[in-house]
Amino acid sequence: MKENKSKKGLEEFGEKIVNQIKKGKNPEIEISLRNLSNIVYDTKQKILKLGNKISTRSFFNVAHSKKFLQTVEVASVIKNELLSSGKHSSLRDVFYMVKRTIPGTNINLVDDQTESDHAIEDLEVITDFSREQLHVAANKMGSVAGRVIIEDKGDTIDWSKMGSGGWSIPSITDEIIFKKVNAKYVLYMEKAAVWERLQEDKFWEKNNCIIISSQGQTTRGIRRLLQRLYEEHDLPIYVLCDQDIYGAYIYSVIKYGSIALAFASERLTIPGVKYVGITADDVVKYDLKKHFIKLDEKDYARIKQVSEYPWFRENKEWQRQFKMMKGFGAKVEIQALTSKGISFISEKYLPDKIKNNEFLD
Amino acid sequence: MKENKSKKGLEEFGEKIVNQIKKGKNPEIEISLRNLSNIVYDTKQKILKLGNKISTRSFFNVAHSKKFLQTVEVASVIKNELLSSGKHSSLRDVFYMVKRTIPGTNINLVDDQTESDHAIEDLEVITDFSREQLHVAANKMGSVAGRVIIEDKGDTIDWSKMGSGGWSIPSITDEIIFKKVNAKYVLYMEKAAVWERLQEDKFWEKNNCIIISSQGQTTRGIRRLLQRLYEEHDLPIYVLCDQDIYGAYIYSVIKYGSIALAFASERLTIPGVKYVGITADDVVKYDLKKHFIKLDEKDYARIKQVSEYPWFRENKEWQRQFKMMKGFGAKVEIQALTSKGISFISEKYLPDKIKNNEFLD
Repeated sequence: MKENKSKKGLEEFGEKIVNQIKKGKNPEIEISLRNLSNIVYDTKQKILKLGNKISTRSFFNVAHSKKFLQTVEVASVIKNELLSSGKHSSLRDVFYMVKRTIPGTNINLVDDQTESDHAIEDLEVITDFSREQLHVAANKMGSVAGRVIIEDKGDTIDWSKMGSGGWSIPSITDEIIFKKVNAKYVLYMEKAAVWERLQEDKFWEKNNCIIISSQGQTTRGIRRLLQRLYEEHDLPIYVLCDQDIYGAYIYSVIKYGSIALAFASERLTIPGVKYVGITADDVVKYDLKKHFIKLDEKDYARIKQVSEYPWFRENKEWQRQFKMMKGFGAKVEIQALTSKGISFISEKYLPDKIKNNEFLD
Repeated sequence: MKENKSKKGLEEFGEKIVNQIKKGKNPEIEISLRNLSNIVYDTKQKILKLGNKISTRSFFNVAHSKKFLQTVEVASVIKNELLSSGKHSSLRDVFYMVKRTIPGTNINLVDDQTESDHAIEDLEVITDFSREQLHVAANKMGSVAGRVIIEDKGDTIDWSKMGSGGWSIPSITDEIIFKKVNAKYVLYMEKAAVWERLQEDKFWEKNNCIIISSQGQTTRGIRRLLQRLYEEHDLPIYVLCDQDIYGAYIYSVIKYGSIALAFASERLTIPGVKYVGITADDVVKYDLKKHFIKLDEKDYARIKQVSEYPWFRENKEWQRQFKMMKGFGAKVEIQALTSKGISFISEKYLPDKIKNNEFLD
């Protein structure tokens, strides 16, 4: 069983602590720092990752002992309740499983979910297993269709025979087995409504690709699914977002990672992913200025912030995009393409851009 | 084709206007008022619906002419772009399809999506066809699993063979064909993470039911799906939400309708739906008080508002719930049950409550 590996990782973590206690030492946990001071952008690997700073957390230290306990208790719950039973749970569920008073006191071990979330991240970094391998999932979101046959939990599922709905992507996609993958590329879009347009137009059938959507943010389940299709099946990944700063950021998270999950970048990022649109140039070329939505102060502030991120700072093409964004003083949604015809996006816009290799890197 | 009926409805609407023009009259549209003054709670049918007030909108009236044009233009786009091609689109797409300047002027026909949304509602009321029958969809959300085989867009889809993900529910579920439905009831829950718990525990297999989730609000696609299973297959529908005022409201929208969609109540509501939990009594019985999350001012205000809605006002059981809610000064999430064991919800809580018919009406 796959679970045995992660279980062993947690057991080793526990044994280290037990050995320290047996030797009469103050038990301590060493762990890579995860705050901003230790998050670096690796210009060679082109991903966000943790630096070399280590923090030590010891039991007999008033400032550390609660966090120490939290990490150990979460490790115990994950090992005994999840990995041993083969079951998975959400971050919220783990919170409730560890939420109890510390024996002999009336102090809660955790009062807030951020504490158990933090302990789970500790264990990801300590064991080098992903949250998913520890059987803890974030939210479930999104749909997929294409000429792909998978096996999941004993069921054989054909993504090309899912009607108008598609297969609903689970929160954990690490355990899917790909039986047959027949596609030239993967198109990922931030909007479920655009996915429904492409699904109705049989876009994946006509263009021999896989279409995947979430709604807003990209879940870890989707990021792993994209990454596995990229790494295990050599498929190019193209991202389709609104022409705004949030679209650019969604793209950058898939490509470079995020600050919050920098410790997991190597498990989640896809350096080769490309941005197919909507670009500022598309806005000009396809005459979409009439569908401008004015930027507000928050948008401008976010453009400034995102454009200064190290992974965007040296990227001339994206800097040009940010400049045009500000010049427009406006953003354009994917759906603005509908003004040129309901299936313009699937019959003209996407096939043209992909055929002509018009991507941003 | 199904589309022909709705198309005919729109054509009749257009013909009426043309006939008025031919007779040299000022063309006008008669339409049921949809504002609060004309929304009534029908105590007999137990649904929210429109009253008898009619408003008249005429073309040669400065205050009406733009709205008049919007309604006519949206009707034309729906007929020519959607129904004639058999394609569907989102509300947002319809907005972009009608967003253009009025010929001979530099005035936009619509500036904001609320205007085209409003015109679509006009047409729902005028033609008595639902938005879905007019091929316009809201958001796509949610997953389903169970011993059900459907046919959709020519694909045969077995909801019992969907792995960990389930079938992804499309925004329009009117056109699904049920080939085989083998279930005793439908369990609908507001949280995708809870659905994943039940899916992993094979809840639907062990309890011979169908499990459906969204994330937060219930989409129209899900409401229609629930309604069709209730009406066409006589299945009881049970709703599982957090023990808070938002959970109560989610339930009441499915049962009685909502103010915003009062005009569509008969097409969307399910008078027989029941609330399985989490109830305030569950909180006591299952010792969940230690997982209280304190209410804030907004929660209290919402309790006051919801408890005074006509469909709750006379409901003693729910009034008792609201009172207990206020007494607790706190709410409890579904996932708090996890504190009693990861599968407590699927092995004990739900089977017991359903077996003992412990529902709120």
